[in-house]
Amino acid sequence: MSEIVFIHCFEVPAGREEAFLKLWGQIDGHMVKQPGFRWRRLHRSLDDDTRLRFVNVAGWGTAAQFGAAHDEEFRRMQANPGWQEFPAEPGLYMVEREDHL
Amino acid sequence: MSEIVFIHCFEVPAGREEAFLKLWGQIDGHMVKQPGFRWRRLHRSLDDDTRLRFVNVAGWGTAAQFGAAHDEEFRRMQANPGWQEFPAEPGLYMVEREDHL
Repeated sequence: MSEIVFIHCFEVPAGREEAFLKLWGQIDGHMVKQPGFRWRRLHRSLDDDTRLRFVNVAGWGTAAQFGAAHDEEFRRMQANPGWQEFPAEPGLYMVEREDHL
Repeated sequence: MSEIVFIHCFEVPAGREEAFLKLWGQIDGHMVKQPGFRWRRLHRSLDDDTRLRFVNVAGWGTAAQFGAAHDEEFRRMQANPGWQEFPAEPGLYMVEREDHL
């Protein structure tokens, strides 16, 4: 089954992980209930010095479903000024190559 | 089974995708044969304007196994001057949260 993958990389200052996780969890709780959501893994760097401290990787059915999930409730949560502390880079991807042992 | 996740984000100029994939494939072919390698997905952005055009996400058993895979053959391939065209950000991660429908 084809899918698209949303990858969202975050910069999070050391010591601010819990504040980030609280904000992220609000939006995540909304997104996982939307049509087209399939799975997601939030990754946390082992090393505090990694610039991209958190990376969210999520599978969605289609780009249209992913777009539709960004509704009014999403925009309200995204407008929280707390997000200014956590620069982020989002992108939509297809899987180019995949292998499992 | 616990695992660590290696995430490697790459900038790739538009039109240079095949050159990138050739270089990446050389190192990838080495890594997938090393002890501790479990799986990897190479992602390619749907939009040429995404700064991080390719993102490799790979599961490994332990950080020590991942480190040991960076052997002399790896370093020889990594030293290829072709890589200078593709700025990259690597990091090792743990899975902080995971959900599947």
